[in-house]
Amino acid sequence: MKPMKLFTPGPTVVPWRVREKMARPIIHHRTSEYRAIQRGVTDDLRRFMKTENPVLLLASSGTGAMEAALANVTRPGEKVLVTAMGKFSARWKEIAEVYGLEVVSADARWGDPVSPEAVERALDENPGVRAVFTTHAETSTGVLQDVRSVAKIARERGALIVVDAITTICAENLETDLWGLDVVVGSSQKGVMTPPGLAFVSISPAARERVEGAGRRAYYFDLNRALAAYDNGDTPWTPPIGLVMGLGEALKMIGEEGLENVIERHGRNARATRRAVEALGLELLASSPANCTTAVVFKDGNAETVRKHLFDVHGIRIAGGQAELKGKIVRLGHLGYCFESDIFTLISGLESTLLDIGVIEASGKGIEALFREFHEM
Amino acid sequence: MKPMKLFTPGPTVVPWRVREKMARPIIHHRTSEYRAIQRGVTDDLRRFMKTENPVLLLASSGTGAMEAALANVTRPGEKVLVTAMGKFSARWKEIAEVYGLEVVSADARWGDPVSPEAVERALDENPGVRAVFTTHAETSTGVLQDVRSVAKIARERGALIVVDAITTICAENLETDLWGLDVVVGSSQKGVMTPPGLAFVSISPAARERVEGAGRRAYYFDLNRALAAYDNGDTPWTPPIGLVMGLGEALKMIGEEGLENVIERHGRNARATRRAVEALGLELLASSPANCTTAVVFKDGNAETVRKHLFDVHGIRIAGGQAELKGKIVRLGHLGYCFESDIFTLISGLESTLLDIGVIEASGKGIEALFREFHEM
Repeated sequence: MKPMKLFTPGPTVVPWRVREKMARPIIHHRTSEYRAIQRGVTDDLRRFMKTENPVLLLASSGTGAMEAALANVTRPGEKVLVTAMGKFSARWKEIAEVYGLEVVSADARWGDPVSPEAVERALDENPGVRAVFTTHAETSTGVLQDVRSVAKIARERGALIVVDAITTICAENLETDLWGLDVVVGSSQKGVMTPPGLAFVSISPAARERVEGAGRRAYYFDLNRALAAYDNGDTPWTPPIGLVMGLGEALKMIGEEGLENVIERHGRNARATRRAVEALGLELLASSPANCTTAVVFKDGNAETVRKHLFDVHGIRIAGGQAELKGKIVRLGHLGYCFESDIFTLISGLESTLLDIGVIEASGKGIEALFREFHEM
Repeated sequence: MKPMKLFTPGPTVVPWRVREKMARPIIHHRTSEYRAIQRGVTDDLRRFMKTENPVLLLASSGTGAMEAALANVTRPGEKVLVTAMGKFSARWKEIAEVYGLEVVSADARWGDPVSPEAVERALDENPGVRAVFTTHAETSTGVLQDVRSVAKIARERGALIVVDAITTICAENLETDLWGLDVVVGSSQKGVMTPPGLAFVSISPAARERVEGAGRRAYYFDLNRALAAYDNGDTPWTPPIGLVMGLGEALKMIGEEGLENVIERHGRNARATRRAVEALGLELLASSPANCTTAVVFKDGNAETVRKHLFDVHGIRIAGGQAELKGKIVRLGHLGYCFESDIFTLISGLESTLLDIGVIEASGKGIEALFREFHEM
């Protein structure tokens, strides 16, 4: 009977308009009808990612798109730099190793971003880096990285810059062309409010040159094929038609609210959540917090208790810690289709849980902090 | 106003029950709720693919699953045999070349299957083949191949047997374990009546041994990770949650009708379609026809005219020829959620179109042929 309320940083809530679109009868993909839908989707993505570059659709999770990016812009034995600050940014290293690259790493404590200075130092100490693989927001810690500065440093040294923006597209300010980002990777189940299974990558002219000259090291993820099909509004393989139709509707909704308003809403919700968490006497993990998720540290070992209680009692589904943060944090997702009143639900549920398990005594402080943020007090 | 009626061999019609399931609120995948759904799906797939082997889910099109199969059971430089008889079976060669394999090929005219004798000859002339990559039904020609005999020959020579069964799962008799098929590849948008974007592979103990010993040549498609996650009802990457939920409902529907009845329905619809096509004086392409699609040859160059007319006048969407068969054939799909009355629609539409464009004069012969098949006359 009790409804489930999703507050995870992906998958995120899928609006009814999107689900209704996906519930319609399926159409065939080798038709002008489908091609028009796909072109609308890729054009909206380009607009929201602020780029003139082509945006290629892939039937895969975000990880597949990361691999596609890496496999197509590198050659075996080349030196690349990875900025690692959590589970997902470290994934670039794992993929690079499978592709036989020499990996230089600029690491940060899980909870901090990798500073532009650290990137600069790593590049100076390791001349000949051909590409930098970085992450706009690290979902495992809720940390935002200054990819604009990282990109500037990479470009000054002639390296390509490849950005995992999976949890920031339509949630943070992201200027693909202005910042000179060569490849930007996104996926459907985050800020763009669609179920998982669809990913996308933008490709700059410089990256395209690398892609076109690449020896073929992948078949399904061969971006030459995707680029050739793109001009025709096509994909080389059968696309996830229903998800593409759903994403089209989601992007239309974002356009209606206005991208800048959507990003501002994300920022406000994230700030409000952080103020509330601190008002409840809890500790924030991220020194440079992102809009997608707020990681809360539980030094008392209560993280999993809180997470379980929130779901069992209130149907509120939040995320736990991953890898080395397992059992040490919870992650409150406020990404995508998430509004002020949803944050009320989330914070009231959290506060009520803390009361139930005896971590705090008084109540109302979390919600009070939200009011302060939302009413600009 | 005019409704579109889908008669393509993939994507196929998605039943409302499946679409309704996918229209439900999304759930998180790292939960017991999701794991139970995924286990139900993989158990049903195992039952319908007649295997005790694990069936791994992949967020990709069928081509991605073919690459996953090939990348994981081969090593660079190894010799493999491909049976090529059309666009999709020839794809095995293209993938094998990307992975640096030595490819031996047993080819057939597009419209014929590769005979077991040809496979035997190729294997005898090329000792040391480690794996045979074959295709149960070739969608570009509508040809069914005797994979049972091919598998027997491969196994006798110690080669692994990998089968693309993308258009035959739940549409043709397929005995994975009885026939000794090591890897069987399927995808969602064919006989199992779900939108595209979800693929699956079964892995025999012998194939698993190869997978586990493989140097890692892919990351997203690393089946070691998928096998490790499988035991927990998990996937290594975010799965296409909505599609998995949809597939669960589709498999439930197949279970309700009964797999044997579903396959018999496919066979009857395919036979009826062929009888009708011949009664209309048209030529069939396939010497050994499959249940998924009926390819009709138009030597007069009318293939694309017929296809366009069927859609423009009747909203009936069929497929054309691909690659070397482009413009020479049409393909009538009768795969998945397709019943007697749908075949009435398809054949009446075809007959009416042939009248309109002046290819035939009398009418009713196609439908009469259907009645003969359906009434066992």
